[in-house]
Amino acid sequence: MSNRYELTIDKILISSVRNNPDQIISYQGRENITYKEFNDRVRNLAFSLLKMGIRKGDRIAVIDWDTTRYLEAYYAIPMIGAVLHTVNIRYPPEMIFYSMQHAEDRYVIIRDEFVPLIAQNKAMFSFIRKWIVYSESGKIPGTLEPSVNFDDLVKSQDPVKLPEITEDTIATTFYTSGTTGLPKGVSFTHRQIVLHALASIAGLSDQPIGLKSSDVMMPLVPMFHVHSWGIPYSTIMKGMKYILPGRYDVPLILSIMKKEKVTVSAMVPSILYMIISNPDASGALKENHLKVIVGGGAIPKGLAVKASSIGIDTVAGYGMSETAPILTLGTYTQKVMEMDEQKKSEFRIKTGVPISLVDLRVVDREGKEVPWDTKSIGEIVVRAPWLTQEYVKDKEGTEKLWNNGWMHTGDLAVVDSYGYISIVDREKDAVKSGGEFIPTLVLEDLISTATGVNEVAVVGRSHEKWGERPVAFITVNDKFNLENLKKHMESYVESGRIAKFWLPDDYMVIKEFTKTSTGKIDKKPLRKNL
Amino acid sequence: MSNRYELTIDKILISSVRNNPDQIISYQGRENITYKEFNDRVRNLAFSLLKMGIRKGDRIAVIDWDTTRYLEAYYAIPMIGAVLHTVNIRYPPEMIFYSMQHAEDRYVIIRDEFVPLIAQNKAMFSFIRKWIVYSESGKIPGTLEPSVNFDDLVKSQDPVKLPEITEDTIATTFYTSGTTGLPKGVSFTHRQIVLHALASIAGLSDQPIGLKSSDVMMPLVPMFHVHSWGIPYSTIMKGMKYILPGRYDVPLILSIMKKEKVTVSAMVPSILYMIISNPDASGALKENHLKVIVGGGAIPKGLAVKASSIGIDTVAGYGMSETAPILTLGTYTQKVMEMDEQKKSEFRIKTGVPISLVDLRVVDREGKEVPWDTKSIGEIVVRAPWLTQEYVKDKEGTEKLWNNGWMHTGDLAVVDSYGYISIVDREKDAVKSGGEFIPTLVLEDLISTATGVNEVAVVGRSHEKWGERPVAFITVNDKFNLENLKKHMESYVESGRIAKFWLPDDYMVIKEFTKTSTGKIDKKPLRKNL
Repeated sequence: MSNRYELTIDKILISSVRNNPDQIISYQGRENITYKEFNDRVRNLAFSLLKMGIRKGDRIAVIDWDTTRYLEAYYAIPMIGAVLHTVNIRYPPEMIFYSMQHAEDRYVIIRDEFVPLIAQNKAMFSFIRKWIVYSESGKIPGTLEPSVNFDDLVKSQDPVKLPEITEDTIATTFYTSGTTGLPKGVSFTHRQIVLHALASIAGLSDQPIGLKSSDVMMPLVPMFHVHSWGIPYSTIMKGMKYILPGRYDVPLILSIMKKEKVTVSAMVPSILYMIISNPDASGALKENHLKVIVGGGAIPKGLAVKASSIGIDTVAGYGMSETAPILTLGTYTQKVMEMDEQKKSEFRIKTGVPISLVDLRVVDREGKEVPWDTKSIGEIVVRAPWLTQEYVKDKEGTEKLWNNGWMHTGDLAVVDSYGYISIVDREKDAVKSGGEFIPTLVLEDLISTATGVNEVAVVGRSHEKWGERPVAFITVNDKFNLENLKKHMESYVESGRIAKFWLPDDYMVIKEFTKTSTGKIDKKPLRKNL
Repeated sequence: MSNRYELTIDKILISSVRNNPDQIISYQGRENITYKEFNDRVRNLAFSLLKMGIRKGDRIAVIDWDTTRYLEAYYAIPMIGAVLHTVNIRYPPEMIFYSMQHAEDRYVIIRDEFVPLIAQNKAMFSFIRKWIVYSESGKIPGTLEPSVNFDDLVKSQDPVKLPEITEDTIATTFYTSGTTGLPKGVSFTHRQIVLHALASIAGLSDQPIGLKSSDVMMPLVPMFHVHSWGIPYSTIMKGMKYILPGRYDVPLILSIMKKEKVTVSAMVPSILYMIISNPDASGALKENHLKVIVGGGAIPKGLAVKASSIGIDTVAGYGMSETAPILTLGTYTQKVMEMDEQKKSEFRIKTGVPISLVDLRVVDREGKEVPWDTKSIGEIVVRAPWLTQEYVKDKEGTEKLWNNGWMHTGDLAVVDSYGYISIVDREKDAVKSGGEFIPTLVLEDLISTATGVNEVAVVGRSHEKWGERPVAFITVNDKFNLENLKKHMESYVESGRIAKFWLPDDYMVIKEFTKTSTGKIDKKPLRKNL
């Protein structure tokens, strides 16, 4: 069809910038630009990247906190047909290197304070053709070469014709730590991102969120984390005021939320815990009527109650790196709408119900839907227009993810009689701490190399603040020394092999492990002992 | 991509029926079925049509008022890859024949009361293979053969595998009367309908409509008229209670609206006029807080004020048969949100601003955007994901419609400094006086606010010196006084709202207007009388 209108990311801007040219995008409430200025900067950045020789399909990494410049990259990079790689800055350097090498990144946009991290391991990054550095202070560190100043690229440029791209062009990629040691790459097309944004807006407009374009959005989901749940696209599509928090700092976040009258946010449970535990939270937020979409882990009921006591309404969301991410929201269906407020509040912190265009089922091992009885456990499988089509360069992983045309989430859930799902168990072996997976197999591998350790299994112990924290069970011989094991593990933190927050909270010596029929350590009885 | 999720119409039902199985679809508030029952009936109908031998690409006409059965056809026919032809039942028989023959319809779903209309001209319809008749009374007239009873087709059926269809499969077709005598056929794909529904929901959730799934929708846009503005798809996608009015009858409509607590409707200005002119309207609707989306013609200010006086909030929408139809809504942008209520109300009855994914421009003859100064007149051209790709079997018409990748609407508009467009005329209706356009819609709007004026239409009368001069036709009540009307209009000249040469040469009081099949004032007979 000759006049087909491709669902590409540039289309998000067209009507929104036209209708709301003076709407504000604010960095920490202190550096504001309008939608019109943002649109100009995005276009200039796109022109500059093209002039730099970047071509369709080239991967461009971004290493940054949640900033306006990052947001500009979210649009400009896909707009020229290049691929935005949102690098997980909480990875240890070795895994950052791994993901960038695996993605075949050729260019990097980087904030000055991350430059030393890379510069220490400069030789490893020889595959990078150019570093695009920025500094709020204006002083660009000279340690990465060749480099250009990001801020020169968003200045007024002679227009260049943007390449024509189809909606099936890859727009973004990032890496996710699953059950196995090495992170897996996922990727999303323009079409997937546009449809996810549109369906998100439709879903978030339902009660009790009732998203309006007059809401003020300040997400606290890192921009390296599953497109910050798509908020950089949906917020602008909706024409809302958008506040970017920079590096997360609770007192600063509270003061920005108060000053900018933020009404909607999104975060993992551990960030919500940190915010409401701050003694200033109640005073700062009492007039905002803040609604918080909580994802990346179930909302403990106690946390929702505490949040509610200082005027924060929580609503659950669910998805994964592989799903762009939103699959379900704890919004009210027709039956729940008819209940009283007390009863309603139980539903909005469940994992939720599928949003429009999401076909989600909880199935048994034969692929049959489990009864909606709140006790039959099944795996969540899903079809939707915005699911990653593959793990990058991982045929085996892709085949496991996609089976019979359904994406297998590895999440176990029950369904209540109203159709609301509740996840009861996470992916078998992973520990999720502060919204981030800690790959237990990596820890087990390292612990197993310490002197005196025989066998090891790491499992998650639930934790009020972090959701889960890792605990290691070990069997040992007479050469074992606990202090040596701890030093052993800390040495991997120092060398950048693992992140500090991955270190187990406890090492518990036991006599022997229960084994499964195939001879593997059975982790279920271990979890029961926590 | 193997796991691509096609945007087909069946996907609208999946999450909505799953989440809201007990939500109600009601025919006139007296025959209710649940979403779950509806879904079952739709699937049974699809199976039955397949068993009847209907295949992908076959055209199936529907001849009916706005009923639940029609709604079932909206889903079941496209779901088997066939094409739903929504026949304009207000056409004269000859044009019904023309459109059905031109569309190459092979099957017809028809309500008993329309059977005589067809039976009279039976021989003309020999190209129809089977008539699918239904009757609320249960008595199927035997005059059309071969025939089957619709109600047998929605009964429980052995499942048949539905054919796999892509999102680019044609789902619907219908005919639109243009400037020339013969109606033109347009068609829409599954993808276009799904995207239109999703973007409509997102747009309608903005203020002052603020559509919620707890709203009760009763559209008064006929189902043969541009998919009833997409409401049969968007309402179900949103999970709302849906009331179908059957044949339009104002007292009945009012009683249903009261009984079912209808909160949202959609209609053309003349239907709104009929409703609010009914003496029972105020009593019936005062507690509904009814919001009405008004399209198919500008909302005269006088009508909006009258509607508001009985508690009805009007909001403009704009589109055409060629555009599925929604392009703009009179929803509030960021700047308008900041205004006081009085000022806001001026904007919501303008033609509006483009919804998400719509790229709309008002351009001069060179294709350059006109300044946003509320006075420079240009043509609306548009790109969006849901525009008809062609006029059926009309290459010349298609080429005229699509020029340089933009759809040319033939509507003339101005843009105010906030970006809101206001249609001032259809290109074909415009009065050109001394080489200048006189916008008839602006005149009609002002005349409508004069005391004693009911309805108004301004047309051009040929004039030796000026080419054309405007003449106003009006219907009036007993408060009308011609001298007062003239003074009323002159005051707008004095205040600079209109130019002196725009003043109509004559005001002609008539008894009533002829209406088109879609309920708009038909200007053709007026011109003939000049």
